[in-house]
Amino acid sequence: MNPEDFLQLDRVIHERGRLAIMSLLAATPQMSFKEMRTTLQMTDGNLTTHMRTLQEAGYISVTKEFRGGRPWTTYALTESGRQAFAAYLKVLERVLDQARGKET
Amino acid sequence: MNPEDFLQLDRVIHERGRLAIMSLLAATPQMSFKEMRTTLQMTDGNLTTHMRTLQEAGYISVTKEFRGGRPWTTYALTESGRQAFAAYLKVLERVLDQARGKET
Repeated sequence: MNPEDFLQLDRVIHERGRLAIMSLLAATPQMSFKEMRTTLQMTDGNLTTHMRTLQEAGYISVTKEFRGGRPWTTYALTESGRQAFAAYLKVLERVLDQARGKET
Repeated sequence: MNPEDFLQLDRVIHERGRLAIMSLLAATPQMSFKEMRTTLQMTDGNLTTHMRTLQEAGYISVTKEFRGGRPWTTYALTESGRQAFAAYLKVLERVLDQARGKET
């Protein structure tokens, strides 16, 4: 067993709620808070907390504008977030192989 | 995107340190605390805390005996732990497919 792969799992992304958020944003140019909340079935509080963590890590950008006189917030992966997510997925594949008993 | 898969990730197993422990124990009948600490490159404190969490979840059993007059502690997956780990790996595969953008 190689513990390095496990230690390399990015904790910011590995948490299951944030993993869902990153997967969602990786598949779209940007998404609104409301759409994300509905798709992910998360509470406002949970989603807000996770988005703040991802923002502080530099993985997502926030855009605020007005639509029809109402505030409209959208989120997108940053280039750094896209790279971190791609790197995370590679590590996770190796971890999954090890967990299944296939040494890499 | 299907958020159910992400929500089904067992948090007890998903944490990267415990995921390493479960992967290690899944590949062996039992293992001593010292061997685990060395293989996983964890501190005593970290390993002890994770093992307690896994024990409280019913996923591992602890056996204490004396060897050459010294206490010797070994750990093993329980049947429940083995089932939970197998279920976790199936969910993780689906999550990985979704994260890669392959809808399941």
